[in-house]
Amino acid sequence: MTYFTEEIMKKISKNKIVYLFGKGRAEGRADMIELLGGKGANLAEMTNLGMPVPPGFTITTEVCTHFHQHQIFPDCFRRDVERAMTKTESHMEKLFGNRNNPLLVSVRSGARQSMPGMMETVLNLGLTTKTIPGLIAKTKNKRFVYDAYRRLIMMYSDVVMEKADMFPAKEGIGIRRQLEDLLHSYKVKNKYQSDLDMNGDDWEYISNKFKKHIKSTLDKTFPDDPYEQLWGGIQAVFQSWGGKRAMHYRRIEKIPDEWGTAVSVQAMVFGNIGSQSATGVAFTRNPATGENKFYGEWLPKAQGEDVVAGVRTPHPLNEATKTEESKDLTSLEIFMPKIYTQLDSIKTKLETHYRDMQDIEFTVENSVLWMLQTRTGKRTGMAAIQMAVDMVDAGMISKEEGVLRINPEQINDLLHPMLNKKEEKSAKVIARGLPAGPGGSIGQIVFSADEAERQANDGKKVILVRDETSPEDVHGMHVAEGVLTAKGGMTSHAALVARGWGKCCIVGSSTLNIDVSKKEISIDDITLCEGDWISMNGSKGTVYEGQISLQPAEPDSNKAYRQLMEWADNIRMLKVRTNADSPKDAQQAITFGAEGIGLCRTEHMFFDAKRIMIMRKMILAENEFDRRKAIMELLPFQREDFKGIFKAMDGKPTTIRLLDPPLHEFLTLNSNQIEILAEELNVNAQKINNRIYELHEFNPMLGHRGCRLGIKYPEITEMQSRAIFEATAELKNNAVEVHPEVMIPLVGTYTEFKNQEKIIHKIAKEVMKERKLQFDYLVGTMIELPRACLTANEIAESADFFSFGTNDLTQTTYGFSRDDIGGFLPDYLNQNIISNDPFQSLDQNGVGQLIKIAVEKGRHVRSNIKIGICGEHGGDPDSINFFDRNGLDYVSCSPFRVPIARLAAAQAAIKNKRFVSSDD
Amino acid sequence: MTYFTEEIMKKISKNKIVYLFGKGRAEGRADMIELLGGKGANLAEMTNLGMPVPPGFTITTEVCTHFHQHQIFPDCFRRDVERAMTKTESHMEKLFGNRNNPLLVSVRSGARQSMPGMMETVLNLGLTTKTIPGLIAKTKNKRFVYDAYRRLIMMYSDVVMEKADMFPAKEGIGIRRQLEDLLHSYKVKNKYQSDLDMNGDDWEYISNKFKKHIKSTLDKTFPDDPYEQLWGGIQAVFQSWGGKRAMHYRRIEKIPDEWGTAVSVQAMVFGNIGSQSATGVAFTRNPATGENKFYGEWLPKAQGEDVVAGVRTPHPLNEATKTEESKDLTSLEIFMPKIYTQLDSIKTKLETHYRDMQDIEFTVENSVLWMLQTRTGKRTGMAAIQMAVDMVDAGMISKEEGVLRINPEQINDLLHPMLNKKEEKSAKVIARGLPAGPGGSIGQIVFSADEAERQANDGKKVILVRDETSPEDVHGMHVAEGVLTAKGGMTSHAALVARGWGKCCIVGSSTLNIDVSKKEISIDDITLCEGDWISMNGSKGTVYEGQISLQPAEPDSNKAYRQLMEWADNIRMLKVRTNADSPKDAQQAITFGAEGIGLCRTEHMFFDAKRIMIMRKMILAENEFDRRKAIMELLPFQREDFKGIFKAMDGKPTTIRLLDPPLHEFLTLNSNQIEILAEELNVNAQKINNRIYELHEFNPMLGHRGCRLGIKYPEITEMQSRAIFEATAELKNNAVEVHPEVMIPLVGTYTEFKNQEKIIHKIAKEVMKERKLQFDYLVGTMIELPRACLTANEIAESADFFSFGTNDLTQTTYGFSRDDIGGFLPDYLNQNIISNDPFQSLDQNGVGQLIKIAVEKGRHVRSNIKIGICGEHGGDPDSINFFDRNGLDYVSCSPFRVPIARLAAAQAAIKNKRFVSSDD
Repeated sequence: MTYFTEEIMKKISKNKIVYLFGKGRAEGRADMIELLGGKGANLAEMTNLGMPVPPGFTITTEVCTHFHQHQIFPDCFRRDVERAMTKTESHMEKLFGNRNNPLLVSVRSGARQSMPGMMETVLNLGLTTKTIPGLIAKTKNKRFVYDAYRRLIMMYSDVVMEKADMFPAKEGIGIRRQLEDLLHSYKVKNKYQSDLDMNGDDWEYISNKFKKHIKSTLDKTFPDDPYEQLWGGIQAVFQSWGGKRAMHYRRIEKIPDEWGTAVSVQAMVFGNIGSQSATGVAFTRNPATGENKFYGEWLPKAQGEDVVAGVRTPHPLNEATKTEESKDLTSLEIFMPKIYTQLDSIKTKLETHYRDMQDIEFTVENSVLWMLQTRTGKRTGMAAIQMAVDMVDAGMISKEEGVLRINPEQINDLLHPMLNKKEEKSAKVIARGLPAGPGGSIGQIVFSADEAERQANDGKKVILVRDETSPEDVHGMHVAEGVLTAKGGMTSHAALVARGWGKCCIVGSSTLNIDVSKKEISIDDITLCEGDWISMNGSKGTVYEGQISLQPAEPDSNKAYRQLMEWADNIRMLKVRTNADSPKDAQQAITFGAEGIGLCRTEHMFFDAKRIMIMRKMILAENEFDRRKAIMELLPFQREDFKGIFKAMDGKPTTIRLLDPPLHEFLTLNSNQIEILAEELNVNAQKINNRIYELHEFNPMLGHRGCRLGIKYPEITEMQSRAIFEATAELKNNAVEVHPEVMIPLVGTYTEFKNQEKIIHKIAKEVMKERKLQFDYLVGTMIELPRACLTANEIAESADFFSFGTNDLTQTTYGFSRDDIGGFLPDYLNQNIISNDPFQSLDQNGVGQLIKIAVEKGRHVRSNIKIGICGEHGGDPDSINFFDRNGLDYVSCSPFRVPIARLAAAQAAIKNKRFVSSDD
Repeated sequence: MTYFTEEIMKKISKNKIVYLFGKGRAEGRADMIELLGGKGANLAEMTNLGMPVPPGFTITTEVCTHFHQHQIFPDCFRRDVERAMTKTESHMEKLFGNRNNPLLVSVRSGARQSMPGMMETVLNLGLTTKTIPGLIAKTKNKRFVYDAYRRLIMMYSDVVMEKADMFPAKEGIGIRRQLEDLLHSYKVKNKYQSDLDMNGDDWEYISNKFKKHIKSTLDKTFPDDPYEQLWGGIQAVFQSWGGKRAMHYRRIEKIPDEWGTAVSVQAMVFGNIGSQSATGVAFTRNPATGENKFYGEWLPKAQGEDVVAGVRTPHPLNEATKTEESKDLTSLEIFMPKIYTQLDSIKTKLETHYRDMQDIEFTVENSVLWMLQTRTGKRTGMAAIQMAVDMVDAGMISKEEGVLRINPEQINDLLHPMLNKKEEKSAKVIARGLPAGPGGSIGQIVFSADEAERQANDGKKVILVRDETSPEDVHGMHVAEGVLTAKGGMTSHAALVARGWGKCCIVGSSTLNIDVSKKEISIDDITLCEGDWISMNGSKGTVYEGQISLQPAEPDSNKAYRQLMEWADNIRMLKVRTNADSPKDAQQAITFGAEGIGLCRTEHMFFDAKRIMIMRKMILAENEFDRRKAIMELLPFQREDFKGIFKAMDGKPTTIRLLDPPLHEFLTLNSNQIEILAEELNVNAQKINNRIYELHEFNPMLGHRGCRLGIKYPEITEMQSRAIFEATAELKNNAVEVHPEVMIPLVGTYTEFKNQEKIIHKIAKEVMKERKLQFDYLVGTMIELPRACLTANEIAESADFFSFGTNDLTQTTYGFSRDDIGGFLPDYLNQNIISNDPFQSLDQNGVGQLIKIAVEKGRHVRSNIKIGICGEHGGDPDSINFFDRNGLDYVSCSPFRVPIARLAAAQAAIKNKRFVSSDD
């Protein structure tokens, strides 16, 4: 590791790089989190609010950025830090490194957004062989001082002297662990039960032993100079920003690398210094339920880490929040009533000031309360909603602020049945994978879609376990409680289908060894057979042996949720529709607030055993006559499909996409299946083989699909249009309102659109004439190819609506196959080539430009053209914001994302100032 | 068929719809071809030039368009035509339908662009039972009159009374053929040898028989009213514009449907009326060689169709153009010296007037010369060049006009060795296919790439015959004289590779039945075995049994060609580079005038047996160390590859693209090959299978390829960069100038570019240090994804150059896989969904927009960024025009298209007015 060189000091920074706080005055403010990080900004704010904060100073994030860009610190850095130390010394009336009255400090990271546990902290800096005797004399507590010293040594050697970045630990044992082992041996040798048995001499002995071990292992001397300790600590914190662990975390949380972290250096206060000392963490409201009660935990005679570490059982903060388990523990309210009252009043002040629930840390040193941290507290979805609604009701925040308070993803918590949390906690995790479909599920293992269907028909609950899934498995996935695959990522077939349905699903669980022929899974040394029960938490990606009970989801039973969504619905400009292929999905989506169907795929309707046989007959037909005859056999089925969906939608607009996938998807057969099919259709197997060969495509995604099918085989379009319009007519006769919107897929040229549109209009006219009635309908197209965006003006001449198919648009714009991206996407994310999976969150810079172009060109020609989006991005909040900003009319997403989209749309309207507040 | 109704007359056309010509005055002009068609405009022009043209009038193309839009004729139509007929009657001093002095007329089509044989003509209109006796009395030639009458009946019943469109004849026998059969039976019954044996009574008899047959077959009476005949004829010609045959032709020739055809109605003159009558066709210069001699054919006592039909051998026009075969036939010059002199002077006048070679038709009726047509004559490539250069030299046209005169595709004629034309004419065509690679080839049949290589190494000339080809066949294709496949279209692998090399190739020859195991092809009843000789004309798509000799191509031996290309090179703004992967190709391209390499693909270099084994070792490596070790074995090979190419280019800029295809392309193995590979590499076959399984992609085109390889496996980029720079350094040491341009493929984000660029710069620095010298190089990227175009500004921050990969850009913009487009492209072209295969000619409206965006954004950030294009479109004249218009710096195409591109670039510069004429 490099220490500061003269060179480091050369560069001059014009900006202020150190911000002081202490004794009721701070140079920073809460709104300076970009510069001071969350911790630094809030320490400053609390100081200015007159709260008791140990004095210190914050080094800005700009220094971190500078350090990572140039590998040196800006000039004046040492001078400014030394000056700030002097100020801190004067506030505390102690001196850093002073023999008689030494000041100890902590060095902590603090980024703009909290990254818990991701970066380094060093405490007790300033303890040296020179200052220890003085501190012992002053505290009269040798044990306390040497305990603090050995803690410094352990942290410092780990964080500063060894590499800052040990995650993931690749080989060997880190220095910290080695020191812990030394301590453990010492205690064993002395027959000590715990650290409490260690006295001052023991800690002194162990501290010296540690220093020797460090010297011999790392070949470095533990620094005995307080400033050397300080510089090393600061640099280590900055370096930890660039560590793998932190980078990894940032990638997941979408935190830009450029933000950097600030470093706060602060005078130490000790909650473990005597019987009138304590430490605690608290939330201004209950973070799990949102209940408006001061809620927290504390420990007497302890340091902060002791509360979190879970070695000692923490006490409840007050009487009001005691539970069955904690009822016999002394609350702070009882133990230190004055301190508690002071803390409670600080709590109220903080919440009023910040207008949000705060997560605070405090320490009581010899009956003096010190505030160590405040920050906006994390909360469950349920709690977030409750607090937001309560605060709006209390007049603390506006409705818009209330709506903005909830991370839309958190609504998920309310939507899916979950595993019973308690049971889950004690159950054994047998495998892990990617959390592809939310909620919990329990069922008996099956290994094939057919078996799943058979057993489900017998009333069994099954979980379908496969290496991976394909469209042929869809019927089995549909009836299964959950789906578990050994391969595939978050965008695999299984994941997409399951997420669309809100079905519990875990993919890419790579430790699974599935032997389909034996009907067995082996996971390490566990073997599971068909029929064995497993439980899955699809929101976490964990698989458990046996049965865990389920808790159902009924979001609307939650009054706060209902209230919040009402506000959101009033605010948002975007309509929210759903992608649904069945009456059941449609119904589900409506209970979640969907205002129409934005995408009803028709291909899934053909995978049922009887229908696929007709499809195959159609595909194998040798001329138009036979093909038409075969496809017309599907008409009654399709008509009933649409009637069911239309009925469920009850007058809401329903966009139906004509057949999209290439025909070979209906002919993926092994040789045995071919023989059977040949027999059933009474044709030569060779003929089927030939047709399969003919239909084979190298790049099916770019092949003969979408409207290209309907152009080559107009009878398909005719049949589907007829089914749609006959269903419309029949329902209209029964006084059911129907608003069909026929959507032509994969249009790249206006000529394609016109070709298909003509057929649809022709059939509509025919049906109206036959049924002797009139009905309204729209004909529009999916915009899912770059060329469609670029020529949207031409297409808009005819199209009643556009619906962006952002999945395919992303595939073609990036040249990424969603099915194959797994080969390089992890590397791309790791190496920061892209910051997000573009199939999860819209690539606004690339794909977004095409969408903008299309909206502009489309509206230029037809100002009232209805424009929506029905790709996966329709349920992604960031993407929804983009769609709102660009003036789309609606988003469409899977039923289980509808409430999320409703909230996200409201937030977008607020952020994009598309909504004018109605609050007075 | 519908005749005119009152309704037809309703619509009023404001424009003049009938243009008269006759007796030295015409209302039309040559530059009115859009309105009057080529024929009508030129008849008017000749009339105005004082040449003897039978009077008549032309009905405009607007009437045709109107007719096709509304299915009725515009108002005043009948009135205007009748008035024009009156005028024509007065010019001819005959009356239409008059008993004693009847006027006969012809009705002929005439579109803006000639569509030979595609539309209908009706002659001798006006012959009725009422006019026949008078005409016989006037001509004293009953035979002539009834012969004319039966011709009218045959044409009219076919063209007007039966459906206009009989192509392709689907079922039954058309009326014309039925009448011909009747005539044939009559002649057989009367033991007549030919029509010459038929006398007037015979023709009268047969005419009556025809009319009866028509009545009984078509249930319509042959019209005996002259105007009914005329209206029917005019309508039939218009209808024939919309017939399948004409539509098909227009699609191929890229003639818009909206152009429509004009109809010329003209007084009949007869070349068969007596001994002083004759008819002929002529060219003002030799259309095959370009030689400046009046060249044509004529027949005494004949009608126009007789010259073309080939029943009688036509005579040469003059003495100067007599050949060995025609030396004994009487020339017009000798037979009718006065007429010839008149014709020759008209010829000179026409060529001077039109400033181009004319194709003329004339008739001599009783010693009077009549001009029936003039139009710009079609010519061979050779002739086109010769004439252009001669006319420039003669001061008739400017250099720019000379350059514009040649259709760039015609240069092909000069570039490829061809089958000896005479031998070809007498050889038997055994199969036909698509003309995928130009020129001629002869060789012995082989059925595998390995066999091709083996036999070629033994000095044999082979033709590789396959169902279709894949990258693994490339070595065999390379050594073969020609490639013949049973499957695939103009954009199949075989076609692309062959065209790139200028190799003779025929694809999609569907009558071939290839039995690889037996090493046999059967074509209908012919069986060919390995080793049998065949000959192929790749420019026509014909396959012959046996050996036909070859004529080599030496374009530069042609003085006119050299002159023309010199002019073109001076005019053009675009540089022309070549796509070349080997020193041989590079050398070839340079002889054709290439100014650099725009695309050197490196993947083909790895398919040689030894190298592919190393590639496979690399792919199967389990960690970076082994992978690096394996790939570095390829370094010496690659270095030598590049040295060869750099040497061939001798200082010309050379763009080398880093590895592009997905790795599985190197692992397409059957189970037997896997076993062998396993043994050779000493690994478990299962491991290879696993890796193949892992690498499998659903959409390889959108998969793990391009820079995505180099990002995941930086060692590949390192090895290739090292090979490039070491080759550069070694040649530089030997005083060879080298300008490498390293091209990163498939970039979609600037981060990808920067990632790879960093590696390349690092290696360059290393090599410079190791070799102790400096060299220049550029690092740029292929722009082949929509996202790259949309974010070109970001990429241009770092990239030295852009090279549009329009193949992939077309694939992603359209969402068309080039390999799979065959499933629907024919339907798309047939149904006019698209007018061109976008892989052959750039989709300027869609893909072109992205190119414009990219050029604009790229230049905005880096004004001097070098921009080229290296997709297939780099050799397509229309696309080249687009690239010129959009300010690209260069196009790159396959070696054999370099001269075409040079010419096309010059034409583009002229058309886009990017070039200021240097002529004074």
